Amino acid sequence: MVLCEKPLGRNAAEAKTMVDAVEKAGVPNSVWYNYRRVPAVTLIKQLVDEGRLGRIFHYRAQFLQDWTISKDLPQGGEGLWRLDVNVAGSGVTGDLLAHCIDTALWLNGPITEVSAMTETFITERKHTLTGKTEPVGIDDASAFLCRFQNGSLALFEATRYARGHKALYTLEINGEHASARWDLHDLHRLQWFDHKDEGQVRGWRSVHITDGDHPYMKHWWVPGLQIGYEHTFTHQFADFLQAASQGKSCSPTFRDGLATDYVTDAVLASATNRQWESVRT
Amino acid sequence: MVLCEKPLGRNAAEAKTMVDAVEKAGVPNSVWYNYRRVPAVTLIKQLVDEGRLGRIFHYRAQFLQDWTISKDLPQGGEGLWRLDVNVAGSGVTGDLLAHCIDTALWLNGPITEVSAMTETFITERKHTLTGKTEPVGIDDASAFLCRFQNGSLALFEATRYARGHKALYTLEINGEHASARWDLHDLHRLQWFDHKDEGQVRGWRSVHITDGDHPYMKHWWVPGLQIGYEHTFTHQFADFLQAASQGKSCSPTFRDGLATDYVTDAVLASATNRQWESVRT
Amino acid sequence: MVLCEKPLGRNAAEAKTMVDAVEKAGVPNSVWYNYRRVPAVTLIKQLVDEGRLGRIFHYRAQFLQDWTISKDLPQGGEGLWRLDVNVAGSGVTGDLLAHCIDTALWLNGPITEVSAMTETFITERKHTLTGKTEPVGIDDASAFLCRFQNGSLALFEATRYARGHKALYTLEINGEHASARWDLHDLHRLQWFDHKDEGQVRGWRSVHITDGDHPYMKHWWVPGLQIGYEHTFTHQFADFLQAASQGKSCSPTFRDGLATDYVTDAVLASATNRQWESVRT
Amino acid sequence: MVLCEKPLGRNAAEAKTMVDAVEKAGVPNSVWYNYRRVPAVTLIKQLVDEGRLGRIFHYRAQFLQDWTISKDLPQGGEGLWRLDVNVAGSGVTGDLLAHCIDTALWLNGPITEVSAMTETFITERKHTLTGKTEPVGIDDASAFLCRFQNGSLALFEATRYARGHKALYTLEINGEHASARWDLHDLHRLQWFDHKDEGQVRGWRSVHITDGDHPYMKHWWVPGLQIGYEHTFTHQFADFLQAASQGKSCSPTFRDGLATDYVTDAVLASATNRQWESVRT
Repeated sequence: MVLCEKPLGRNAAEAKTMVDAVEKAGVPNSVWYNYRRVPAVTLIKQLVDEGRLGRIFHYRAQFLQDWTISKDLPQGGEGLWRLDVNVAGSGVTGDLLAHCIDTALWLNGPITEVSAMTETFITERKHTLTGKTEPVGIDDASAFLCRFQNGSLALFEATRYARGHKALYTLEINGEHASARWDLHDLHRLQWFDHKDEGQVRGWRSVHITDGDHPYMKHWWVPGLQIGYEHTFTHQFADFLQAASQGKSCSPTFRDGLATDYVTDAVLASATNRQWESVRT
Repeated sequence: MVLCEKPLGRNAAEAKTMVDAVEKAGVPNSVWYNYRRVPAVTLIKQLVDEGRLGRIFHYRAQFLQDWTISKDLPQGGEGLWRLDVNVAGSGVTGDLLAHCIDTALWLNGPITEVSAMTETFITERKHTLTGKTEPVGIDDASAFLCRFQNGSLALFEATRYARGHKALYTLEINGEHASARWDLHDLHRLQWFDHKDEGQVRGWRSVHITDGDHPYMKHWWVPGLQIGYEHTFTHQFADFLQAASQGKSCSPTFRDGLATDYVTDAVLASATNRQWESVRT
Repeated sequence: MVLCEKPLGRNAAEAKTMVDAVEKAGVPNSVWYNYRRVPAVTLIKQLVDEGRLGRIFHYRAQFLQDWTISKDLPQGGEGLWRLDVNVAGSGVTGDLLAHCIDTALWLNGPITEVSAMTETFITERKHTLTGKTEPVGIDDASAFLCRFQNGSLALFEATRYARGHKALYTLEINGEHASARWDLHDLHRLQWFDHKDEGQVRGWRSVHITDGDHPYMKHWWVPGLQIGYEHTFTHQFADFLQAASQGKSCSPTFRDGLATDYVTDAVLASATNRQWESVRT
Repeated sequence: MVLCEKPLGRNAAEAKTMVDAVEKAGVPNSVWYNYRRVPAVTLIKQLVDEGRLGRIFHYRAQFLQDWTISKDLPQGGEGLWRLDVNVAGSGVTGDLLAHCIDTALWLNGPITEVSAMTETFITERKHTLTGKTEPVGIDDASAFLCRFQNGSLALFEATRYARGHKALYTLEINGEHASARWDLHDLHRLQWFDHKDEGQVRGWRSVHITDGDHPYMKHWWVPGLQIGYEHTFTHQFADFLQAASQGKSCSPTFRDGLATDYVTDAVLASATNRQWESVRT
């Protein structure tokens, strides 16, 4: 049984080899897209699946950081391998957008086509291992428009140059009847709007996801007492062990991870060739 | 017909004379406790009156400012008469707490008894008119515990020494079934919690009070476009003219204003004699 | 002297005729892109111009509404001309994105190229004037990626199908040293992040734009008391009269309005031909 | 070495015995007032100790819950011993206010006198152990005004009847130069206002307490990734072990716990005799 850090491969070709291997071997597998196990995000999945939102019109996600703005930050080595394209494969596309895409595919189904742009704001950095100033091969920022198979439109953006944001992963989904929002900086809260609420007192609800009937929360503290980032891994690991004990894989599987790589490949291709790109399935 | 700035008198004795005069004369009257006409506050009144909150357990209000913290600020004269006890009658008790009390009496009924404390943090200030340093006679801060006739408990606080707050009037009312919150710094929003909402998605709703079916709002802009502070006066003036055209007074009447003075008198007495004080009715 | 509602023309060709006319006539002119006169937005302009943000990396704006989601809403006629393409010229691109673009050009300089997508979710509606069901010619949603001349990247989105949002115009600009955010639902607040703040207490500041030294605010209430939507028009009208009294035009001029139409034309073209489009200047 | 759950005793007399015992035995000791180890609260302590706030004018705290509103909830037994006065000693005074008081004494020094009120809203409940309906001896709500030795004024309130609040412990401290706020529902955030900030961009900062230079946080995740409720216990246990390894006690000691019991005793006495009560030291 195999648990793999995300993204599954540095590109879809690598990931495909891995999928083929685990599926041939028939071993339970899962990829660490841990945000599916944030209780608030898991609850959004339930609400979507129950049809509470109705027809989906819009999806938007962003993952904003600011830790690489300084040009004095070197690339490569232990803490900075994410800046070395040979190790990381890409920049924020594989590191941050991949998270946004995995959640989106889970909540809103397949993406059919993308139009993307990427940018490298700081084009040369000293390399920790060689000691020399070398070109930066990663994308510092990446954004794309896309269409989902269900007819909804979406915008995605990730960057490490959004001053003021540490790890602000946000997502929002707008349906005919209801909408949901979530962000990583307050991961224990769900923002929920239900148009069926009576008009005069209709508004976005800030739901503190700490009750026993919220996903995963019966295992933790009493209402009002939040959990932290690592609990998302705990949840996934528990689910993985539960599934593995029955010889099954656990969502997201390697195949799910490959689907995300197909999207990130399309994003990087579109950014290069300046065309809309279809996403492989 | 008479519209009077609040508080009605510098104390209840003064106010009583005024009530007697207008009632004897039989002229339409009203006092400028303008916060009753903030649409969000008016909506809370409707929700309370409809029984949406059920039995009331708690009320709390505060009015926090920070503009008099400097000891170099003089007292008296045009812009600073609020610091001169001979002109103002009291400090924040009559200036700020009076607003909190008027709204509370309207929303939650009579207050029966209070236990209060007041403080003057800066005890001497130069007087603008005399040019001399003189004792400060007003209360810089005032707070009290109280019980309402309906059995609920409450805390009130006003101060001009809460660094960081410009004019933060906040109120909250907690009932058996629902609760409401409002604050002046975002006067166009109502915070509403309804326990009848389905558990998993139950939370405080932030209601943007800008729809045509919100109190007074059919006369203003389209949904999403907020109004400002002065509109509360516009609403009261419109209501006053409407009432006066029928020979009637408009809430809050001089008699309502007297009720607030009875409470502020009790607050100041309690702060002096360190006893619980009953409120006259 | 001429004040024109926005957008200046239904397309750049119409707008160009108008620019030529006013410039030939030499009359003071202005276009009602009123959001430049929201004090918080005006303050962002000052902060950008003072170089507080440093090099700009990112800009993002959205204008989200939900009032046309019902398929039973007709098109055309007095209240619904915005849904009739022959009257409105376009849908949300000209109605909502145009506002976002005007502010962005003012704060962040020229846009050089765009990649866009648009969608019409409800393709037929009864026409109020003819009584017949007719095709809907407007765009219900419009989004685009773009690059600014200063090297920054941006995402823009407007829609009338974002359930839960009444008129949520938001903008954010991220610079090397600082970032600013603003949204129309709380138009009296500025969100400001300054990286020069001491690390342990560094965070987004919520600035209540109601002080006498904030743009336009010395003419209004005391600190803590907010203004409303209409004040933005009051500010622009005051500036216009002031400028006109000296024979000058007032920002945004007809020529500024034309610049926005060049962008919206590029957006609509890109959405049709699925290519990146350069923006005329 | 002894770690004791809070409150130290059901009253000060019990607590005094415990203090005498541990001090006589000379064993390292600590009381589980875990909120001192919320990183945001620990940071407030640092800021206060550094003199950043200057002279303190105000302190306010509340602990609001709503889980006992139903009259069908029994008292006594495993999950409900908090409702049985013979086991709990008091109601929210010892359970919730004690937390507020411990933090306040730590941040703001000794409390000298209090004026309090308490209430039992539901006066009879079935007892789980006896099966009979019995009088409820605990206080459902408790509130008090007080003065600190440093001249500041404060309000404290705790209740289990504030509909909509799960475990909302909030505190705020207002000084001459700066103010700080914190609440348990978003325990990873500090609200900080510094009057020395430049006027036009002065506002409350929302500080995401997840950086390596924040108290305790170098041991946890990277910036932007929050911790949960249990980490406050982890921090205290680590500090306790560290102190114990040197034969020392760890804050809050049993003696600190006794100081809180002196305040809660005064609160309960004041609520009964309707007088201001001095706090023993």
